Amino acid sequence: MANPFHQHLDELNELLVDMARRVVVAIDRASAALQEGDTAAAEAVVAEDEQVNALQFQIDDRIIELMTQYDAVAADLRFVLGAVRISVDLERMGDLAKHVAKSVLLRAPVPVVPESLRGDFAAMGAAAVRIAEKLVVILAEQDQLRAAQMGLDDDELDAIQERIHAQLPTLGYGPQTAVDAALLARFFERFGDHAVRVSHQVVYAVTGDVHLDRS
Amino acid sequence: MANPFHQHLDELNELLVDMARRVVVAIDRASAALQEGDTAAAEAVVAEDEQVNALQFQIDDRIIELMTQYDAVAADLRFVLGAVRISVDLERMGDLAKHVAKSVLLRAPVPVVPESLRGDFAAMGAAAVRIAEKLVVILAEQDQLRAAQMGLDDDELDAIQERIHAQLPTLGYGPQTAVDAALLARFFERFGDHAVRVSHQVVYAVTGDVHLDRS
Repeated sequence: MANPFHQHLDELNELLVDMARRVVVAIDRASAALQEGDTAAAEAVVAEDEQVNALQFQIDDRIIELMTQYDAVAADLRFVLGAVRISVDLERMGDLAKHVAKSVLLRAPVPVVPESLRGDFAAMGAAAVRIAEKLVVILAEQDQLRAAQMGLDDDELDAIQERIHAQLPTLGYGPQTAVDAALLARFFERFGDHAVRVSHQVVYAVTGDVHLDRS
Repeated sequence: MANPFHQHLDELNELLVDMARRVVVAIDRASAALQEGDTAAAEAVVAEDEQVNALQFQIDDRIIELMTQYDAVAADLRFVLGAVRISVDLERMGDLAKHVAKSVLLRAPVPVVPESLRGDFAAMGAAAVRIAEKLVVILAEQDQLRAAQMGLDDDELDAIQERIHAQLPTLGYGPQTAVDAALLARFFERFGDHAVRVSHQVVYAVTGDVHLDRS
């Protein structure tokens, strides 16, 4: 990408990468807060979600600026449409990290996750962080190959969610604990789904193939 | 809207209205299936979600066509960006109706919602259908006033969700029933959230005021 328009597209992409980096921090902190009942970390996640949202406004403004200044060809427009959708998904991933953090705050000082599920949730948190970190690389390098494989990483989150759900009726938890655990597992699972959508958008931006994107 | 470009924007909007109409049918059928354990209706919701997804592809193609053919001014670009986001939210609303339908199928022939929560879920279903119907009007008429009030309609869904959640620990349900009910209530609640987002996009498309849109 060399001409002024493409330089602007690069800058637009930098804003997406910045959003993705903040999402890594958010889900990492939220997962740690969940494991350790750390309310200060949970509060930081809630507070800093504002900055993820603010980046989405910046991206909107940048796109409108770009599109009024330049005549774009179809390939560039695909990239721009992709950027709109990616920012929506990243914003939502930030929200989901915030939901995890809020669950910690809602039940504190009681741990929201019971002892016997702590390991599964640690695994979910680790998988979610790994997925978010991979997303930063995929966006920064427009890495098609890694993007195409994101579904496999997401399968891990789905598998852990199923394992958690399968245990809920049998571990002797009360309904409140079971509901909290089910919703938390769903937040992580949705986090992974949005990462897959972002990855598909990266593929779409380059190939125009949208048919991967929806279920 | 009179010139050829604006006629094309009108056609683009028609596609969004068509999507919204299909979402009304989907959530209406899914809610009825939930009340009556009607697996045929639930299967129809799952099958017809494909058509909602297909409309999103059409909208993408139409936008790229439009943007390569015409030089748009900032106000029109806001409308186009809004259309991208609205199609994402409507697609998701279709998915959520499908999730409700799939819950019915997963537990059939056992009703997924226990007798004592049936009334609350009937109220959630009715509120969701009303919200989706209102969305059709908001989109078709670009009705700012109704759009600005959508948050109030959504408050009703949030209130019923809270009522359902509050009952779960006390009604003596097992964890599986409680988890099913909590997730179902969340599907309806998210359905309402996406309707609010669509409404905010309609306001944004006209006023450029994005600051309503994210939480």
